[in-house]
Amino acid sequence: MKIAILGTGAVGSSLGRRWGQAGHVVFYGALEPDAPDVMELVEQTGQSAKAGRCRDAVAGSDIVLLALPWEQVRSVLESAADLKEKILIDCINPMLSDLTDLQFGFDTSAAEQIAAWFPESHVVKAFNVLSSAAMQNAGFGSASASLFYCGADGEAKSVVRTLGEELGFEPVDCGPLRAARWLESMAMLYIHLAVFEGWGGDCAFKMLKR
Amino acid sequence: MKIAILGTGAVGSSLGRRWGQAGHVVFYGALEPDAPDVMELVEQTGQSAKAGRCRDAVAGSDIVLLALPWEQVRSVLESAADLKEKILIDCINPMLSDLTDLQFGFDTSAAEQIAAWFPESHVVKAFNVLSSAAMQNAGFGSASASLFYCGADGEAKSVVRTLGEELGFEPVDCGPLRAARWLESMAMLYIHLAVFEGWGGDCAFKMLKR
Repeated sequence: MKIAILGTGAVGSSLGRRWGQAGHVVFYGALEPDAPDVMELVEQTGQSAKAGRCRDAVAGSDIVLLALPWEQVRSVLESAADLKEKILIDCINPMLSDLTDLQFGFDTSAAEQIAAWFPESHVVKAFNVLSSAAMQNAGFGSASASLFYCGADGEAKSVVRTLGEELGFEPVDCGPLRAARWLESMAMLYIHLAVFEGWGGDCAFKMLKR
Repeated sequence: MKIAILGTGAVGSSLGRRWGQAGHVVFYGALEPDAPDVMELVEQTGQSAKAGRCRDAVAGSDIVLLALPWEQVRSVLESAADLKEKILIDCINPMLSDLTDLQFGFDTSAAEQIAAWFPESHVVKAFNVLSSAAMQNAGFGSASASLFYCGADGEAKSVVRTLGEELGFEPVDCGPLRAARWLESMAMLYIHLAVFEGWGGDCAFKMLKR
């Protein structure tokens, strides 16, 4: 698959490298595509990987991972020529800068706002309850972390589910896009545990079943 | 320990039976303490168990499990003579009656409201992200479900942590009481998965660590 990764921070680089190594064509969108760290990331991602401006990465891909700060998402996507039928994977948690809480929630979510701004795309909330360490390795002993995801479009969700399974995650379909409200709160708990309760990034939620 | 269980539905009876069988003195608070199903529950819970009015159960106990509908909590606790230093275990999710969403959240939570109403007590949010089936059995194959809990008082949290460990749960201290906002949203996701996404009650979250 052709995957645009918008943002080359810890999240974008962790998923980009793994999808590139899994054989997907990764196109990083960056403010400075020629920066040494971006060029190094492209090299680590694989022979077919490249980097460019965000709008070019979107134009050349079917799937777009939004690994940007929340404040940048709308303007970056508005600069893209055409989002029609693109799958937007939203892994963003709209946090306050001090990481103590979300900026909004309960009756809306980042994912629902993105879907309202860009109704021609298919937004899937996914990968937002995973640290970059967990993105790099889904395995915790003999157990695998769960990938919680939701969205309005069944085919788009199926694509994201497969992209998660390829990385070793156990998919948990959380239903409609409004479930993103709960997933973003769950991520807030996860970040709180990691940052303020001593868990660090090497932890992840799993849904147990019997 | 002396534990009042207010409410004899699926949650109250599941935890009451297990704590009674673990050797604790369980005092059920019920609207009709002489009803046949309550008398049967008392018998299943153990020799030291009994049932009475909620106010009497509270008066005779150090710990109070709130296993009531959200709408009843305030009036039932107001009828209690004295809540000073009592540990209130809040396992309530303030749901809409059709289970599609919470009644409130984001900048408050059931737990925080209870603490504001009864500041002389020690509120600990716990057991709200567990179905009654998971309460009855924390084991899922070789894994154990996590018990997520939070609160302002360290000693009260320590008591609740022990009560959870006795039942086989792996405790996850989520920090201050305001973490209940995120725990109630996480419970909303859990209930959504159980009721609307086909998971049923035999599932539970676990925090993986490496």
